[in-house]
Amino acid sequence: MSITSDEINLLIYRYMMESGFQHSAFAFAHESYLTRSNINSETVPSGALITFLQRGLQYVEVESHLNEDGSAKPCTAPFSLIA
Amino acid sequence: MSITSDEINLLIYRYMMESGFQHSAFAFAHESYLTRSNINSETVPSGALITFLQRGLQYVEVESHLNEDGSAKPCTAPFSLIA
Amino acid sequence: MSITSDEINLLIYRYMMESGFQHSAFAFAHESYLTRSNINSETVPSGALITFLQRGLQYVEVESHLNEDGSAKPCTAPFSLIA
Amino acid sequence: MSITSDEINLLIYRYMMESGFQHSAFAFAHESYLTRSNINSETVPSGALITFLQRGLQYVEVESHLNEDGSAKPCTAPFSLIA
Repeated sequence: MSITSDEINLLIYRYMMESGFQHSAFAFAHESYLTRSNINSETVPSGALITFLQRGLQYVEVESHLNEDGSAKPCTAPFSLIA
Repeated sequence: MSITSDEINLLIYRYMMESGFQHSAFAFAHESYLTRSNINSETVPSGALITFLQRGLQYVEVESHLNEDGSAKPCTAPFSLIA
Repeated sequence: MSITSDEINLLIYRYMMESGFQHSAFAFAHESYLTRSNINSETVPSGALITFLQRGLQYVEVESHLNEDGSAKPCTAPFSLIA
Repeated sequence: MSITSDEINLLIYRYMMESGFQHSAFAFAHESYLTRSNINSETVPSGALITFLQRGLQYVEVESHLNEDGSAKPCTAPFSLIA
């Protein structure tokens, strides 16, 4: 299962609209050809990009703290999206 | 653990630069004040936004196919980021 | 007497704002560094760019229909800004 | 004789392209619907906007220094596009 470019671009577009980045959303809709795509941005749930990124971060965090046998690695450092 | 707005915006900015959306990246950098932030976009690994969204999608997919007791729900429908 | 770049850019910026081209105005203000200039766009009279272009067009039209001795060239073709 | 909106927008678009304001030009082409217009920007002579503005400025300057009977008003102040 993988994400298509159109899906990613739509999530970003919705995030921009919801966050008040109207000029970026305008440029992005044209530059990514979302204006010509058939996908309706109304079908994207509100806050979807943030939700998926949060889940992805949790997944990566858990993954990085497991040994191969499933036991937990001891770790006290805070975890961040950006290295 | 949660993602900050600056981190999300940085992931989006990097994605735009890597995908050739230069006009959107320009507007976004100014509109989201990334140009004034202290975070260095060079610290974001290449392809980071896509990676996190993929992981988030996997997480959500697994989650939505588990019953509360941990057993799997029977399901044959394809799973998609956008409902 | 000549026009400076800052003056031209300011006339354009005002025209965009007055004509409802808000996304272009946003990009232009940042790309032309008008946001860092000391000139106040409020000092530009409303409709200034159009007024100056109209005057310029009249000037060029008159000029192109005069012989060197000041007599008029016979001409029936309509005159246009764009050749 | 008057200038149409499409002509003004085309002059501005060409100026932006020639001056290296590529992000503004991108936004403006889409926002002003120049991308859908039939006018070919190649027909606009290089530097046209600046030329017309210079001519317009000369016209306005001369006009503002003439009395109604055609005699010149004494004036020593420098003239500027922006009041």
